[in-house]
Amino acid sequence: MNPILVEALRGGIVESAHRGAVAVVDADGATVAALGDVERPIFPRSAVKVLQALPLVASGAADALGLDDEALAVACASHNGEPEHVAVVARTLARAGLDAEALECGAHWPYREPIQRQMAAAGVEPSALHNNCSGKHAGFLCVACRMAGGADVRDYARGYVGAEHPVMRSVTAAMQAATGFDLARTARGTDGCSIPTYAIPLRHLAHAFARVGTGVGLSPEHAAAARRLRGAVARHPFMVGGTGRFDTRVMERLGERVFCKVGAEGVFCAALPERGLGVAIKVDDGNNARAAEVAMAALIEAFVCLDDGEAALLRSLSDVTLRNWNGIEVGALRASDELRQLSTS
Amino acid sequence: MNPILVEALRGGIVESAHRGAVAVVDADGATVAALGDVERPIFPRSAVKVLQALPLVASGAADALGLDDEALAVACASHNGEPEHVAVVARTLARAGLDAEALECGAHWPYREPIQRQMAAAGVEPSALHNNCSGKHAGFLCVACRMAGGADVRDYARGYVGAEHPVMRSVTAAMQAATGFDLARTARGTDGCSIPTYAIPLRHLAHAFARVGTGVGLSPEHAAAARRLRGAVARHPFMVGGTGRFDTRVMERLGERVFCKVGAEGVFCAALPERGLGVAIKVDDGNNARAAEVAMAALIEAFVCLDDGEAALLRSLSDVTLRNWNGIEVGALRASDELRQLSTS
Repeated sequence: MNPILVEALRGGIVESAHRGAVAVVDADGATVAALGDVERPIFPRSAVKVLQALPLVASGAADALGLDDEALAVACASHNGEPEHVAVVARTLARAGLDAEALECGAHWPYREPIQRQMAAAGVEPSALHNNCSGKHAGFLCVACRMAGGADVRDYARGYVGAEHPVMRSVTAAMQAATGFDLARTARGTDGCSIPTYAIPLRHLAHAFARVGTGVGLSPEHAAAARRLRGAVARHPFMVGGTGRFDTRVMERLGERVFCKVGAEGVFCAALPERGLGVAIKVDDGNNARAAEVAMAALIEAFVCLDDGEAALLRSLSDVTLRNWNGIEVGALRASDELRQLSTS
Repeated sequence: MNPILVEALRGGIVESAHRGAVAVVDADGATVAALGDVERPIFPRSAVKVLQALPLVASGAADALGLDDEALAVACASHNGEPEHVAVVARTLARAGLDAEALECGAHWPYREPIQRQMAAAGVEPSALHNNCSGKHAGFLCVACRMAGGADVRDYARGYVGAEHPVMRSVTAAMQAATGFDLARTARGTDGCSIPTYAIPLRHLAHAFARVGTGVGLSPEHAAAARRLRGAVARHPFMVGGTGRFDTRVMERLGERVFCKVGAEGVFCAALPERGLGVAIKVDDGNNARAAEVAMAALIEAFVCLDDGEAALLRSLSDVTLRNWNGIEVGALRASDELRQLSTS
């Protein structure tokens, strides 16, 4: 039974609570701190997009196509589908001689409601470019372009979301190398954007992020790719999320000192390069916005040296005042005592 | 530790799970079935709107103002803010000589995204009429109108959301009578729409809904009011929710044989009049859309006699196929074995 990580309070009592597990691991694979079951394989979903983007740089595709930092950052993103994201993804696809037609992620309205309303007011319908994963998929298509050699990219890339396509095999190999977990022998599911997602224990995910933050234990090509991707995201944190998003807000403030990435179903991973640590969280019930984020904020507070302004930002994300439609304070979200104790132990 | 009620599956494994508690109680207060802690007081939130609407009928306000069934149904609603809901609420307020200005629930964009987009495309901004609780608040204002006698309704009603206002005292008295729980001695929070919400054990909430379904144990005035409100909702199930909503879909099919009402934070209550039972659910983590609803569907399957078509509808709500943005089947939501066993025991 995993412990409570985050509580929602109202009227002086705990109204709801979120259980889950947390692993904090160093680049040698030593567990520095843990709560709950960190050995059970869980689907990391979009939290590992930076691992899935390693071949984009390591294959030479990014250089061959002249991709800029914004393109690399959006390849690691679950973005809001704001006009800036859509423009960078379209530009990236154009570098590979492709357009939105080549994307196999499917279309959806941007998750952020004000953006949906802006689009509706402007008479704009969503396309695959608005899919929160479109930047990652544009990156896959750039890898396909590199692999295709002289062949037609469209033909070569078709079906790139399949586990056996050469592009996806290179992505899976990068994840296996970084996590040190045998992906051929674990459960495989299909992600929201149709690529495979492999069940991996939190301990291995945290180890992978410690490697991403330090380069230790990665091949020279993957280590250089991880460094470049982290730098690109630190310079363009808007690209990895967007207006109001946790990842964007934290990295706008902390730059390369934190690389964090949310995934669906309450998964959250981070690299803390200064400390050489990786962090992985899974909330049992799959809640991201108020559970995984609050837990991640508390862990960053505990494991990163913060100045007063930085600490205030993180505290506003780990101890959140809840207000109702009239702006009246009705409760709070807060990291549990057990999580706070882990943090300060 | 409450048991798992609902599981989310992907790739052949349980990706996420929702714990919670369930009480099924008869009108005499006997517990027919239970899972988890049904004695811990929880905030019932909007699941008890039918109890909060009892004074609207019992006070004579509904008759004095000539309210129709749609007005009574929307008084029990957490509605989608669709044009039909907004029109009925505006019409109800007009009966009391009031308009949206008198509502103290606050404004918000309708929860259902397509409705937001329709409004944005039409250049419509949300008002308090679009608040999912506006029908309940219109009902409170009708009670205020009745209580005001010869006084100016606007002056009399001001501050009606406060616990000590005569309108809210009558609402609290109705909840106390129906639940048999001492609301003066329990935790009190502020709800999303600014009225008080009182922490009440699931066992008492289920008992209250058994009373609402049968009239047993209620005053003659409250029993008649409950019967009339249930009938109004059964004739106008769209008013209590709207397009695509669980409560609307179930009651469109089952009519007066089920009265069910979702509340915030994973609460769900129902009256099953044929069996003389009341049901109350609280999901620990507060998830409604995929946890409380799936659990409620499984309980209706177990405790209501259904024909094949009805059973198929309920099964589609308790065993839900999950598809991704490309329409590919990626997983399922399903009631846990423990919940299914409760149901058939």
